[in-house]
Amino acid sequence: MTVAGKLVGVGVGPGDPELITLKAVRVLQQADVVAHFAKAVQVGNARIIAARYLKPAVRELSLVFPVTTELPRHEASYCDIIRAFYDEAARDLAAHLDDGLLVAVVCQGDPLFYGSYMHLHVRLARRFQTEIVAGVSGMSGCWSAVGTPIAQGDDVFSVIPGTLRQEDLEWRLIEADAVVVIKLGRNLPKVRRALERTGRLHRAVYVERGTMTGEIAIPFAAKQDDCAPYFAMVLVPGWEGRL
Amino acid sequence: MTVAGKLVGVGVGPGDPELITLKAVRVLQQADVVAHFAKAVQVGNARIIAARYLKPAVRELSLVFPVTTELPRHEASYCDIIRAFYDEAARDLAAHLDDGLLVAVVCQGDPLFYGSYMHLHVRLARRFQTEIVAGVSGMSGCWSAVGTPIAQGDDVFSVIPGTLRQEDLEWRLIEADAVVVIKLGRNLPKVRRALERTGRLHRAVYVERGTMTGEIAIPFAAKQDDCAPYFAMVLVPGWEGRL
Repeated sequence: MTVAGKLVGVGVGPGDPELITLKAVRVLQQADVVAHFAKAVQVGNARIIAARYLKPAVRELSLVFPVTTELPRHEASYCDIIRAFYDEAARDLAAHLDDGLLVAVVCQGDPLFYGSYMHLHVRLARRFQTEIVAGVSGMSGCWSAVGTPIAQGDDVFSVIPGTLRQEDLEWRLIEADAVVVIKLGRNLPKVRRALERTGRLHRAVYVERGTMTGEIAIPFAAKQDDCAPYFAMVLVPGWEGRL
Repeated sequence: MTVAGKLVGVGVGPGDPELITLKAVRVLQQADVVAHFAKAVQVGNARIIAARYLKPAVRELSLVFPVTTELPRHEASYCDIIRAFYDEAARDLAAHLDDGLLVAVVCQGDPLFYGSYMHLHVRLARRFQTEIVAGVSGMSGCWSAVGTPIAQGDDVFSVIPGTLRQEDLEWRLIEADAVVVIKLGRNLPKVRRALERTGRLHRAVYVERGTMTGEIAIPFAAKQDDCAPYFAMVLVPGWEGRL
């Protein structure tokens, strides 16, 4: 009789290897198969953090994105390609799960918060036992690195993708008390204009590689160029009416 | 010559003792003074999680709230009382910092995200060296425990305090793709009405004591009573247009 395995989405935190949880360490030490997402030319940071905990006989799976995440999301061809990628990755994991193995997928940040893992989760959770190890999110890492209280009391806090249209960025910036703008990359000039037009620029903080080697954290107003990695973010702290 | 100490806000995660980070463990093992917030009749959960790591000679400080957090926040008398409480707590910590000690304040969840610690931080950060150890937030713990992908792609994600007026809850529920309603407590009937009126009730999940002993996680529509602790929350997952 075959005992089906278990799929675990393991959050390894925002980048600082010390911001991994005890639970993530334990699961990584036990896992038979450990999968990570990667770009074609780049080992993912989550895998680097996880590597020191894996058992010698572990089987590693590298799930290499066929396209970058900066292509237009709504184009049919992009959706077809990425859907096929997740379908195939889920089939690969399912084969190991059918063998009764403990399969961990490492995720930078928190697995169910804007993470790629959830595409595998929804494909496999009906067939196999699953567990999620919550992780410190990238944005928590950023505001903690900067030491900036982000939201308090009756504040409404919003996470806004920089991919939105400028007018949508603007009204959403106005209507929330505290904001994190994610997915900066090539959207930076548009985000800058939205912050300027809504009077948010003076309290915005730009953070790149938060909690990691090479971290940059500066007032957004002091940023001279329009270059930003996709995973850079902008913090707009709330908590105006401090006690 | 006196070397001034260092203040560290230490997030210990959402409640499951295994969801503490390696960095939090290290700081707790090194700290000379460890402070925690408590209610008059109740030891805080953060202190329970932290206790196993403290060194034998540690000095513990219990910061006991003079009033509960469910009093009307905007009343002048409430603000005066709570402001005096934070002022006094900051003075107590400052005395230890002036002695050159490493002072940790343990915080359930993430210190700078709706946490009490930030009231101490803003009072002390100009005078003393500070550091924040990011933690897994309570809400991450909840959606991970339930295994519910919360936000993806171009989703706008909002955290909305249940203390808002019903009409404000309603338009904010409509305008975000994914929502967590925090500070439930006595606000539960109002939140239920807002979820019903905005067509969100069917996808709302009620979570109480997420990741802890006695965890309750049920569809909100199945919740029969109006009783909820203040720290219970409601998840309204986004990600409608799944790949």
